[in-house]
Amino acid sequence: MNLLVVGSVAYDTVETPEGANKQQLGGSATYFSLASSYFTQVGVVAVVGNDFARSDLGLLGKHGIDTTGLETTSGKTFRWAGRYSEDLNTAVTLETHLNVFEHFKPALTPAHKRAPYLFLANISPDLQHAVLDQMAPRPALVACDSMNLWIEIARPRLLELVAKVDVLMINEAEAKQLSGERSLVGAAKQLRKLGLKALVVKRGEYGAVVFHRDFTFAAPAYPLARVVDPTGAGDSFAGGFMGYLAAVGDTGPEAMRRAAVAGSVMASFTVERFGVERLEGLNLEEINSRFSAFVELTRFHPLGGGQGLPLIARPV
Amino acid sequence: MNLLVVGSVAYDTVETPEGANKQQLGGSATYFSLASSYFTQVGVVAVVGNDFARSDLGLLGKHGIDTTGLETTSGKTFRWAGRYSEDLNTAVTLETHLNVFEHFKPALTPAHKRAPYLFLANISPDLQHAVLDQMAPRPALVACDSMNLWIEIARPRLLELVAKVDVLMINEAEAKQLSGERSLVGAAKQLRKLGLKALVVKRGEYGAVVFHRDFTFAAPAYPLARVVDPTGAGDSFAGGFMGYLAAVGDTGPEAMRRAAVAGSVMASFTVERFGVERLEGLNLEEINSRFSAFVELTRFHPLGGGQGLPLIARPV
Repeated sequence: MNLLVVGSVAYDTVETPEGANKQQLGGSATYFSLASSYFTQVGVVAVVGNDFARSDLGLLGKHGIDTTGLETTSGKTFRWAGRYSEDLNTAVTLETHLNVFEHFKPALTPAHKRAPYLFLANISPDLQHAVLDQMAPRPALVACDSMNLWIEIARPRLLELVAKVDVLMINEAEAKQLSGERSLVGAAKQLRKLGLKALVVKRGEYGAVVFHRDFTFAAPAYPLARVVDPTGAGDSFAGGFMGYLAAVGDTGPEAMRRAAVAGSVMASFTVERFGVERLEGLNLEEINSRFSAFVELTRFHPLGGGQGLPLIARPV
Repeated sequence: MNLLVVGSVAYDTVETPEGANKQQLGGSATYFSLASSYFTQVGVVAVVGNDFARSDLGLLGKHGIDTTGLETTSGKTFRWAGRYSEDLNTAVTLETHLNVFEHFKPALTPAHKRAPYLFLANISPDLQHAVLDQMAPRPALVACDSMNLWIEIARPRLLELVAKVDVLMINEAEAKQLSGERSLVGAAKQLRKLGLKALVVKRGEYGAVVFHRDFTFAAPAYPLARVVDPTGAGDSFAGGFMGYLAAVGDTGPEAMRRAAVAGSVMASFTVERFGVERLEGLNLEEINSRFSAFVELTRFHPLGGGQGLPLIARPV
């Protein structure tokens, strides 16, 4: 297995301006693994209850996802319910039931432990540490996500984790909250001081920015006429990002720029329908054609034929 | 004169999280003309009171800006006072005094009327029409700005104007408000139906998007460690955008992509200091070096050496 993710598998109930959907398959590990499955062989470490549908397990299997780390426990699968604002930028959590997730103690198999790429999705920093500590040898690249809850209640443990990973992928408000900085440039500088190679800031409909030690790269989001359900966009981005890197086996700057675009491509599909509806049935042509659309969306000729912009000197 | 702008010249009092500044030179025509002056010869049509400082007139002159259209009337120059939120994304208007602007009737000279590039900054649609109607021949490219106020109180006149111009440059909320659409893609489609060639959406710290009939182009904003004063960013963007197009005398798709970057470059300077402090003293090297920084910020190799992303086929 080339890529491992630890995170949640859940049933979500969402309300968006485009409608509502009950008990849809969700969770960070689900979106991440489906998105990355188009790039590489990915394994999931998570827990579900005995109410977890056979068809959902089948869906993961159809994508070649290794589910030997998907533990089934008596009890109910993690549930989340939320309602999105009119502009889709914020979600109000209506219900969260950790259920079987509450006592989850991930135990990795030898194959899991050797995965060269690891994503620690948004779960408690203690769980993230528990997984990272089992990895041997240390993976080529470790990325993690987090959220405002952990920044508030488990800040020291989270900062300890940040010091051990290569890439932190969080949203804008969280980057500022964790670093105590007002600007993202400042946040990136602070967080890299802890040892981080790159801070990847997810900005929803505004795209993502990679603040790497050696470069900064901004990827826009794909402009869509209709966003149906933003749930899972961040994890799909992470899945495309890590899936691409794991597939090419390269963590250099050029690969990371393309990885951010691959992430944006996968996120742009996810939000087009409820849950994993769009993500589960993609084909290679669709993915590559959207990647090309990103090239068109961002390209410009650096110079107008001369050595620079056609500027006029002005007295200073 | 290659480029003409009609808009406001003002004295602004601003409060931002970085400090406060009283009675600074501002106004849409000021920011626009200073930003575009690095690219081309620009003329200003506006009105000031007899309190307008000689040094401020001198500043415009130093930039080669044609001020024959800058009328001086007895009374006070337009004044605006505002306070920015902690995240700098919104400004609360504390005071607006139109003063001499209230009875402004722009009368264009023959040289003004022949300008091939025209920018109608954010003023009442009636004034915008009054200027556009005097132009002969019709300029090669006409762009206009507007705001929520005019959308609310002068909607029919504004829509009439939109039907006559080539490019509408407004912010995200205004694009949605004017079109009645929830998405920018939808807004662009609606507004282009009126005859518009391109809708340019200004998104502040998230950059700008050009929704052209033939293409969509997204330019990020330059990530800055410290934004001191966002006032004038939108007009500086417009100045760089129109200044670049006027300089190269090209309104084609490739030129427009680069124009959006030139606009982002100029806006990124403006917000680094209060008022026009940063914009007034730029040199060619600084501008070209920031343009290069935008190339670095956005570039990625479209393909990893093959014909597409390294994807794995999955059963659909």
